[in-house]
Amino acid sequence: MYLERIETTGLAHFSYLITDGGVAAVIDPRRDVDIYLEIARREGVDIRHIFETHRNEDLISGAAALSKLTGARVYHGPNPAGNIAYADIVREPFQVSIGNLRLEVLETPGHTDDSISIAIYDEAYPDGAVGVFTGDALFVGDVGRTDFYQDREAEMAGKLWDSLQRLLTLGDQVIVYPAHGAGSVCGSGVAERAFSTLGHERRNNRRLSLASREAFVAAKAAEHHYQPPYFSIVERLNLEGAAPRNNSFSPPVLSLKDLRAHKPDHLIDIRSVTGFLGGHVEGAQALPVSMISAFAGWYIGETETIGLIADRAEDATIAIDHLGRIGFDQVIGAALNPLAMAASGKPLKTVPIVDVDTVAERTKTSDGWTLLDVRSIEEFEAGHVPGASHFYVGDVLAACDKPDLSGPATIMCGSGARATVAASALLRCGYTDIDVFIGSFKAWQAAGKPVEGA
Amino acid sequence: MYLERIETTGLAHFSYLITDGGVAAVIDPRRDVDIYLEIARREGVDIRHIFETHRNEDLISGAAALSKLTGARVYHGPNPAGNIAYADIVREPFQVSIGNLRLEVLETPGHTDDSISIAIYDEAYPDGAVGVFTGDALFVGDVGRTDFYQDREAEMAGKLWDSLQRLLTLGDQVIVYPAHGAGSVCGSGVAERAFSTLGHERRNNRRLSLASREAFVAAKAAEHHYQPPYFSIVERLNLEGAAPRNNSFSPPVLSLKDLRAHKPDHLIDIRSVTGFLGGHVEGAQALPVSMISAFAGWYIGETETIGLIADRAEDATIAIDHLGRIGFDQVIGAALNPLAMAASGKPLKTVPIVDVDTVAERTKTSDGWTLLDVRSIEEFEAGHVPGASHFYVGDVLAACDKPDLSGPATIMCGSGARATVAASALLRCGYTDIDVFIGSFKAWQAAGKPVEGA
Amino acid sequence: MYLERIETTGLAHFSYLITDGGVAAVIDPRRDVDIYLEIARREGVDIRHIFETHRNEDLISGAAALSKLTGARVYHGPNPAGNIAYADIVREPFQVSIGNLRLEVLETPGHTDDSISIAIYDEAYPDGAVGVFTGDALFVGDVGRTDFYQDREAEMAGKLWDSLQRLLTLGDQVIVYPAHGAGSVCGSGVAERAFSTLGHERRNNRRLSLASREAFVAAKAAEHHYQPPYFSIVERLNLEGAAPRNNSFSPPVLSLKDLRAHKPDHLIDIRSVTGFLGGHVEGAQALPVSMISAFAGWYIGETETIGLIADRAEDATIAIDHLGRIGFDQVIGAALNPLAMAASGKPLKTVPIVDVDTVAERTKTSDGWTLLDVRSIEEFEAGHVPGASHFYVGDVLAACDKPDLSGPATIMCGSGARATVAASALLRCGYTDIDVFIGSFKAWQAAGKPVEGA
Amino acid sequence: MYLERIETTGLAHFSYLITDGGVAAVIDPRRDVDIYLEIARREGVDIRHIFETHRNEDLISGAAALSKLTGARVYHGPNPAGNIAYADIVREPFQVSIGNLRLEVLETPGHTDDSISIAIYDEAYPDGAVGVFTGDALFVGDVGRTDFYQDREAEMAGKLWDSLQRLLTLGDQVIVYPAHGAGSVCGSGVAERAFSTLGHERRNNRRLSLASREAFVAAKAAEHHYQPPYFSIVERLNLEGAAPRNNSFSPPVLSLKDLRAHKPDHLIDIRSVTGFLGGHVEGAQALPVSMISAFAGWYIGETETIGLIADRAEDATIAIDHLGRIGFDQVIGAALNPLAMAASGKPLKTVPIVDVDTVAERTKTSDGWTLLDVRSIEEFEAGHVPGASHFYVGDVLAACDKPDLSGPATIMCGSGARATVAASALLRCGYTDIDVFIGSFKAWQAAGKPVEGA
Repeated sequence: MYLERIETTGLAHFSYLITDGGVAAVIDPRRDVDIYLEIARREGVDIRHIFETHRNEDLISGAAALSKLTGARVYHGPNPAGNIAYADIVREPFQVSIGNLRLEVLETPGHTDDSISIAIYDEAYPDGAVGVFTGDALFVGDVGRTDFYQDREAEMAGKLWDSLQRLLTLGDQVIVYPAHGAGSVCGSGVAERAFSTLGHERRNNRRLSLASREAFVAAKAAEHHYQPPYFSIVERLNLEGAAPRNNSFSPPVLSLKDLRAHKPDHLIDIRSVTGFLGGHVEGAQALPVSMISAFAGWYIGETETIGLIADRAEDATIAIDHLGRIGFDQVIGAALNPLAMAASGKPLKTVPIVDVDTVAERTKTSDGWTLLDVRSIEEFEAGHVPGASHFYVGDVLAACDKPDLSGPATIMCGSGARATVAASALLRCGYTDIDVFIGSFKAWQAAGKPVEGA
Repeated sequence: MYLERIETTGLAHFSYLITDGGVAAVIDPRRDVDIYLEIARREGVDIRHIFETHRNEDLISGAAALSKLTGARVYHGPNPAGNIAYADIVREPFQVSIGNLRLEVLETPGHTDDSISIAIYDEAYPDGAVGVFTGDALFVGDVGRTDFYQDREAEMAGKLWDSLQRLLTLGDQVIVYPAHGAGSVCGSGVAERAFSTLGHERRNNRRLSLASREAFVAAKAAEHHYQPPYFSIVERLNLEGAAPRNNSFSPPVLSLKDLRAHKPDHLIDIRSVTGFLGGHVEGAQALPVSMISAFAGWYIGETETIGLIADRAEDATIAIDHLGRIGFDQVIGAALNPLAMAASGKPLKTVPIVDVDTVAERTKTSDGWTLLDVRSIEEFEAGHVPGASHFYVGDVLAACDKPDLSGPATIMCGSGARATVAASALLRCGYTDIDVFIGSFKAWQAAGKPVEGA
Repeated sequence: MYLERIETTGLAHFSYLITDGGVAAVIDPRRDVDIYLEIARREGVDIRHIFETHRNEDLISGAAALSKLTGARVYHGPNPAGNIAYADIVREPFQVSIGNLRLEVLETPGHTDDSISIAIYDEAYPDGAVGVFTGDALFVGDVGRTDFYQDREAEMAGKLWDSLQRLLTLGDQVIVYPAHGAGSVCGSGVAERAFSTLGHERRNNRRLSLASREAFVAAKAAEHHYQPPYFSIVERLNLEGAAPRNNSFSPPVLSLKDLRAHKPDHLIDIRSVTGFLGGHVEGAQALPVSMISAFAGWYIGETETIGLIADRAEDATIAIDHLGRIGFDQVIGAALNPLAMAASGKPLKTVPIVDVDTVAERTKTSDGWTLLDVRSIEEFEAGHVPGASHFYVGDVLAACDKPDLSGPATIMCGSGARATVAASALLRCGYTDIDVFIGSFKAWQAAGKPVEGA
Repeated sequence: MYLERIETTGLAHFSYLITDGGVAAVIDPRRDVDIYLEIARREGVDIRHIFETHRNEDLISGAAALSKLTGARVYHGPNPAGNIAYADIVREPFQVSIGNLRLEVLETPGHTDDSISIAIYDEAYPDGAVGVFTGDALFVGDVGRTDFYQDREAEMAGKLWDSLQRLLTLGDQVIVYPAHGAGSVCGSGVAERAFSTLGHERRNNRRLSLASREAFVAAKAAEHHYQPPYFSIVERLNLEGAAPRNNSFSPPVLSLKDLRAHKPDHLIDIRSVTGFLGGHVEGAQALPVSMISAFAGWYIGETETIGLIADRAEDATIAIDHLGRIGFDQVIGAALNPLAMAASGKPLKTVPIVDVDTVAERTKTSDGWTLLDVRSIEEFEAGHVPGASHFYVGDVLAACDKPDLSGPATIMCGSGARATVAASALLRCGYTDIDVFIGSFKAWQAAGKPVEGA
């Protein structure tokens, strides 16, 4: 009897493989499904069951691909937003047995109409469930967002409240296995800690501890969540059943000249933030490899081609994995070593950085200067540098005609990373006189400077 | 915030690394400590705290070695059976903070006098503990053995009952992180499932569900546990603080002739059961690599030298890891490829196998024939082939002058594996006319044959 | 500038990746082409050229698959035995430049009509070639076989002599990079040493040192080579361009019962020789993982399905690689742990072994007993046990109606491995009273027994 | 029979493991000897012989460590510059046999007094040597430096000429296995290509093709080689026999604050060049991980402690390997993520970059501005930007009181990498008004600008 959590960084996604008696089930597989096959091989088990807790909007499901490779059945909850071509629709009291384990479906709508949870029972120790896969219904420290269906937000929030009450009836002793951890776009208050139980959540979860269904619906209505444009692509692919990743594919390492000759629609510089600031190729969009999952989907079109600029080929490979998980397969190649680019005669561009003292000075004296904070609106409202304007980094990426900057601007965020992404986008769009507040809000706080809106 | 369980197969041992805010603690490290350093490096954290839940008797602790490599402090419970040279003795209410986590010591004697548990609290979600490292006090489905101190068994069982009641006061919502899983010599009823909570154990654990302290003490008194001779070596080393494994060491691959020239005290054939039965070098003890942890300590002396016979060098490396974890470092080399041994003119020996029908026939007709069941006495008493004698495989290994066999014997166990180990030991000791019941008790049951003592 | 030899064991096949200035060429890629992509990624280079030194008959070429994945062109020599759908036909003086390297085609027919060699020049050190890829024309210590075209053996041998003379004109300083090493079915006298030069071969190669074209043709005519039936499948696939291996595929680990339920045409036991002898499932063909490449192609049909029996899942994965390289993709699944099979009530079969003394005794006394030597005819003729009959292991596998055994038989080979393969085939075909001479001819020699025909 | 070249990047060092018949020899092992043990285990062989072709000055020999772990004998040439505590001194005609291979010592002094070469013969193909390990006597395209003994340069050059003539008598067919490849400090004209033969070198090597001993000595006298200060440490350790690397050691990942609290003597920033330029911690020395081997030895003292700043922990681990190979084991820890450093309130420093046009402009107009070229003197003399001054990067690192810069300076090299290292050293030493010519001489040439001294 074995349960493994597979964490997909960037998306903060958790999928699971659970097995007993030589048979395994996979919960919410990601698109690059090799990892499940490897675990199955290592554990000597046969994957026969695949559960989707709901139709994902932020990542491509690997259920169709894994089913094709293994012959496993795919189970999906009732009322999906379309025909799930590759899955059986299951309702309560659907259950499957694997060895001594029994997996029972619970309908837990709210995040989406088709959300289910799957309770785990051990027949050898049968008194009460021992765990539950909660999908995007319940996270550690938070619950799922309920803003996906236009004009139905209050209805969905109410449904989620009801679903959560049902989950709690499983008992305090039940271990919670959610589909996302901290950093996901699917919940903004998720705990750093990945392990919890229904009992610990009942006591500590900020939403579960609300007094009533009404208070819950109100709290959900007050939340703000972003919806990157790629969600609509992913939703469509997760109905059809996305093709598996071709894991033999590895984009060639090319010289910058050869890479440009392919005329990629996008040139993404996946190196470190200071690597980009200190010298980059004109026209490249800064998107450090760890930020691809969060931000590539804001500005890249489904069929647009991509060239990568990286410090090393391994990083390009990781970037390709991240891109593929959200539906972008069109990477043409990678150019390494920006120094070699410079040596071939192509001058590098830099972006100036400024520190706390400079920003503090400017806030007092600079006319026509903008301090642009690109964090989420929730972060901004929780506290920001006095006088700063807000414009979300995703929105900067999504369209070149905004924000409205007349004159020099300093871009900031929490640490300087998202600020660099946004600054890079602005420079690509033709803005000039842009610099980056390195350290950003954290440095500002560490220096004990005054904060507005906290 | 990150918690990883490190499973050491063979010993069914669980150690843990838990980390937050760049700082990590390790619970019950095993002797080959590289794995903790690798996780720390991968997660980018600094190991500063090491807890031992008790002085282990079945495996060498890596606490001293890991402390030396990292500078971390080692914490050990009160009343150890000697001076723990490398550790601080800690008592309630000792606690350490790592990032947002708080680790609190609970004194939980019973398995040993110095047993502690360590409760995990998350300061960001502070209402109630979220997990607890229970060492050998509480397993999933069972509790620790209480037979280590002569004449104090009832006293220790009573102490364990009290400790378990205290643990339960932490609440149903607490996840249990024990030091052993199924297959450990430290508890015979441990569940296959490695994950549970105090709430689920309260409902389902066969010992926690007993009605009273008295019933618990009585149940513990009725248990039978084996104590391999190497326990006393390990106990001494775990006071002194065993030296780290030299992980640069890798025994040379030698021809059988060269290996024999080193005159090892023991020749261990770590190949598969049927590989041994089908052809082996005279004088070698069968001990498939997965069985080394359980049985090498029954017959090898602390300073005796070992030669290995393996199908491939990787297996020899794994065998060396297993041997090192229980204190045997004296492996001289490995000889591969038994066919090459045969080709060099050294004839191979075989062991005949028999099946259900033959055994059934013999039980009816054979005079002077012994059917020797080498499973544990608990397994034997739960059901055996009518007419079978019992002699535990560990005891067969421990001394050559027993059992008393006059005439041919068939050796059996659960499947044929331990039977092969025992048969090999008997042949080494000069017994003749030995065969192995392949499939053994499981095959007997599968064939629907009558069972005695069930 | 970098040159890596990729050795494929089992087939004793050498392919090569050579690179300079960011561009790479691959010579004679095998079917599972991931390894070339990995090297290209690691070295940061772009594979643009693929050479086939000839149409292979013993292994599936990966040229078509690699070309599809990389966009590289494939080059093949003139006069292939059909239309090579995926390649450009190249003739002297075709050449490509990669960085400072120049690769020049030399037409070197003899092994096949379409055989080419590729000389390596370094423009920075231009006086004379520095290396040459010789395909199956020249090996270290031997030359290619010339028996593939019916009724043209003398003609082809003569052509090969002429080609070798041309190769030698490149100069003694040229390093030789052949397509096969020792153990290949493409040359029986290949040296264990994989590195050599034209100068060292000129002095030491048993065929190059012959006095004349006539002597060479005569020597080649006297050779005997086997042609397993799968060669004709491979030849066809290597015209069409075989599909790439699906490296996401990994056959499930199944119970023996579930595996049998799929009714595979073949059950292959890939465990060790003594593992099979000591206990195996009735009907399984012994084929230890390292012998699959050599012998699977003797008896498996192109569309027949395969079930594996293995000690561990990793071995099954390796077996699948070996099978795929020679065109067999139809592996259904793997069953592990023969002991568990026995435990489920299915009795295991064994094969008795005999040693030198027993064989020596029987050669003197046994009427009606056959000692069957299944080595190659060349090995047999170079020396065998007096009185032994010869029947090649491949031929035993190929058809069930031979050899003609009336009475008990002992099977032997060089060490006992091929003998076990042959014994297993005979048992499957209904022969009874078969045992295996473990150690076989090497043990016989080691014991100083008389040898016939040496 | 198997020969593997182990390349150690950074040092451009080649060591070799050669094996036959189960026995292996290692030639010139590096200090982190695990790789030889791994190969031996993988190939199933026993390392019994270790050759040192000479006492290395640029890297720590692993011979003593490997001998201790395996029991192998170490062989070293005659007339070493002191007592080699761990080795047997061997002279012609010393030889060892491993399987069918015979390794014969040839005394080939010149690079050092104790230099030997080792010829490889295959007894099964005995006519002439098949290969030769040439140490630092003969490289592909170049020969060893002869400037190590004061006042004996001409004598040593003459000896090397004689040794090379002897090597050539082995025959054109002999494959050359040197101890260094391109980029080594032991020879400045070494070819990018790692494979060659005596015949190809005889025709193409720039030194072997000289007309006479006199011409050779004169050519060697005209060479210029740098001697980093750490050479003297390494020479001493290579007499004593350096301790093995403790490969369990892995420095903790610390916050920058914790790292500084340890007060390391040196803070090395091993990130990319533009990563450093775009933002770094004040006082850190730029030394990208690939440049550590070449430049750490110019300024770090034997007992001085080191803190690392890296993008990821893996890079720190590689840096520690590089440092250990040249004798620096005192790494205290690594701090990751410079953005987090900035966020904690510590402002980052930047270094401005300039491009070809700016440099071209300044060369015409700037008074008091210095263009400092830090390449080797040989590179500088082969062509440089008109008006540039020369000062070798190693000398910049070695002492803070030079070069003499009055006013602003632009630092350049071949591409910008060494320039960044030098700029960083100058900034640490208190110089101000420093920028870096990114692209440097290669960009200058690519732009078609005039070159001086070519």
